[in-house]
Amino acid sequence: MSIESTIKIQRLDSQDAAFKETLDKLLAWDEVSDGAVVTIVEEILQRVKNDGDEALLEYTHRFDHLQAASMAELTVTQARIQAACERIDDDVYKALETAAQRIRSYHEHQRQDSWQYTEANGTVLGQKITPLDRVGIYVPGGKASYPSSVLMNALPAKVAGVNEIVMVVPSPNGELSDMVLAAAKIAGVDTIFTVGGAQAVAALAYGTQTVPKVDKIVGPGNIFVATAKQMVFGQVGLDMIAGPSEILVICDGKTDPDWIAMDLFSQAEHDQNAQSILISDDAAFLDQVQASIEKLLPTMSRQDIIEHSLVNRGALIHVADMDEAVALSNRIAPEHLELSVENPDALLPKIAHAGAIFMGRYTAEALGDYCAGPNHVLPTSSTARFSSPLGVYDFQKRSSVINFTASGASELGHVASVLARGESLEAHARSAEYRIKPDDE
Amino acid sequence: MSIESTIKIQRLDSQDAAFKETLDKLLAWDEVSDGAVVTIVEEILQRVKNDGDEALLEYTHRFDHLQAASMAELTVTQARIQAACERIDDDVYKALETAAQRIRSYHEHQRQDSWQYTEANGTVLGQKITPLDRVGIYVPGGKASYPSSVLMNALPAKVAGVNEIVMVVPSPNGELSDMVLAAAKIAGVDTIFTVGGAQAVAALAYGTQTVPKVDKIVGPGNIFVATAKQMVFGQVGLDMIAGPSEILVICDGKTDPDWIAMDLFSQAEHDQNAQSILISDDAAFLDQVQASIEKLLPTMSRQDIIEHSLVNRGALIHVADMDEAVALSNRIAPEHLELSVENPDALLPKIAHAGAIFMGRYTAEALGDYCAGPNHVLPTSSTARFSSPLGVYDFQKRSSVINFTASGASELGHVASVLARGESLEAHARSAEYRIKPDDE
Repeated sequence: MSIESTIKIQRLDSQDAAFKETLDKLLAWDEVSDGAVVTIVEEILQRVKNDGDEALLEYTHRFDHLQAASMAELTVTQARIQAACERIDDDVYKALETAAQRIRSYHEHQRQDSWQYTEANGTVLGQKITPLDRVGIYVPGGKASYPSSVLMNALPAKVAGVNEIVMVVPSPNGELSDMVLAAAKIAGVDTIFTVGGAQAVAALAYGTQTVPKVDKIVGPGNIFVATAKQMVFGQVGLDMIAGPSEILVICDGKTDPDWIAMDLFSQAEHDQNAQSILISDDAAFLDQVQASIEKLLPTMSRQDIIEHSLVNRGALIHVADMDEAVALSNRIAPEHLELSVENPDALLPKIAHAGAIFMGRYTAEALGDYCAGPNHVLPTSSTARFSSPLGVYDFQKRSSVINFTASGASELGHVASVLARGESLEAHARSAEYRIKPDDE
Repeated sequence: MSIESTIKIQRLDSQDAAFKETLDKLLAWDEVSDGAVVTIVEEILQRVKNDGDEALLEYTHRFDHLQAASMAELTVTQARIQAACERIDDDVYKALETAAQRIRSYHEHQRQDSWQYTEANGTVLGQKITPLDRVGIYVPGGKASYPSSVLMNALPAKVAGVNEIVMVVPSPNGELSDMVLAAAKIAGVDTIFTVGGAQAVAALAYGTQTVPKVDKIVGPGNIFVATAKQMVFGQVGLDMIAGPSEILVICDGKTDPDWIAMDLFSQAEHDQNAQSILISDDAAFLDQVQASIEKLLPTMSRQDIIEHSLVNRGALIHVADMDEAVALSNRIAPEHLELSVENPDALLPKIAHAGAIFMGRYTAEALGDYCAGPNHVLPTSSTARFSSPLGVYDFQKRSSVINFTASGASELGHVASVLARGESLEAHARSAEYRIKPDDE
């Protein structure tokens, strides 16, 4: 490590004896489950379930300091959306439209169709694919206003053919982001209620007099929102529960170190628990990136958050070669993986687990966050080992279709009967046996 | 209702004023969450996490009365599997093979492939599909021994290309079903441990010295298993948590009423909380089915369970016409739906929510449970509104792939920059701006 480092980012070397242990410690992330939060959320859910709109109005007054006499006042009108769209700059509106068009067109590749096939004896087997009927999207309000999140959550549902998209977004003290409303309009959201927190999740899960009950709730939120989502799981479908955001950059040492430093910052600026890791087989390059970090950090508006994140959860890791870098990446199963190398295509086949893979020096993660097309809702905390980006498939569901002819049922009735009797399920066996033709017995 | 009914199954009519309310009550199902179970399971998870094999051996001794000196004794050998296969009847082994072959061939239709496309400026976008690395399958032991469940859970993973399948199955007092071992062999399970309960779930989720940590756990189990699964969620992936099984039969009154009665029994015999509902537009047919039920029930080995289920949770519902039957089915979103009608293809397009659809008079649900090909792990308790049968897609995951050329990154850098600055994420903006070519600025 360069001796004058003022920003103490961990420097690891894969050849060190303690490397594996240090890495495990660096990656460990335990969400603190908070008993007090659970108690509060349980009460909110119960009240909204019982009292509907009345409870929703009361909590909105209490938590968002927004006094409304009826739910009509918490329902965003077309005129308000129109006014918001007119207030924002033209280039911002156009950027939202460009992003939406690219996201839509990428996600159209994910749409799945029903299929079926017919066997020799006429038996038809298949799968019928249908969209979810109604989906709820939670959008955080207040300081953290993310129009990109509206696009990323609503558009896959829209492409899937979801019939109705209901958005909830808190407007503390009546404040609401124009960009968020514009994004909702562009994405084709049907209804917007200015409610938030656990009470909004409850309204979507159970329905109230005004808010319709949905089939699935997606979108990020604070600890109250996340806890409420977990509690209504089963009642409705959910997207994954996200941990802190992460980026892993693998670099061959030939990308501009300022670019790499800024890519690490772009993750770190989200949250002081966000994790930015750089792996390179070039130790001198790690020094250069460290120098870039020290040079650029004072120029950043979110300097404090970035520094906190880099010092507590970041790392610059030296490896022997690119194979080791890839093995390490597969161990980490990162949410975002940048392959900032000359020939990323050579590495791609070896990447087993990652939410999104950004190939080559030009593909900054920030492009993927906004407008490349793929979704920015990605599996965090190593869950890329078993889960996928949010997609159209999350808003479609499947029904098996089985259609036996008389002869097909007769033929297979024997097999079902033997297995059912082996499991001591006599009614199953007899139900199948009824369909066996006398001359097949 | 026929006046002599001895088996009091609810008879409903959609024209009754109280119909909607009665139906809602009939369908309501609230899993009782048990604080005592949660406490026990928490302790078991923690001990297995800390002490690994030692805790596993201890719990297996305590709960399964199976004393083993080491995990080697709880690992099923090839010789034991071979012996089990030789002990079972030839026709049973062949039935398992036929079922496996059909399940495999159906599920091969579900396999998804990676895709990508190239835009005019050279930007490549796509999705890379990879199988999960290692999957754990929970198989209940003891009295309820379900080889079909081994096939249904293991084969989709196998078709997906999962590298290693680890099965756990308790063997209380050392007893283990030969059919279960044979099914595991046929399905290609790699390793079998004779452990069960919450301790087996913990071993799969955290790994022990002997049991490898898996990426996803699937398969049914009792309340301890279900609670343990919920608690390790996030650590590993899970299949859905199943409620009691259900069947909804829509019949035009022209199927043999004995067949329909037996189809209703085949669901009811699973569990006294299972739900069997028949809908018909022919009131006289409902009487005939009631008569068949009374005639056939005394001949059933699981008579008590069936009667309890039918009386408490079953119903025979009269509707005005088939459109009403379909609307009702969509309201119920059943796990299993039998369309026992002359022309099921006419109804299929209107079916919005169902786990599996059994078309026509010959397609008994029992055939689908064992050997039709589609999976028998299906969404229960109306969750077919937002979830799907277990499938190959549950054992594959996706990574977004993004590869910008220098000019593509330059072009879109503007869009990302505008949106990032709109969200006050300066590092995101600057990371994108670095990739804008000087002459594009």
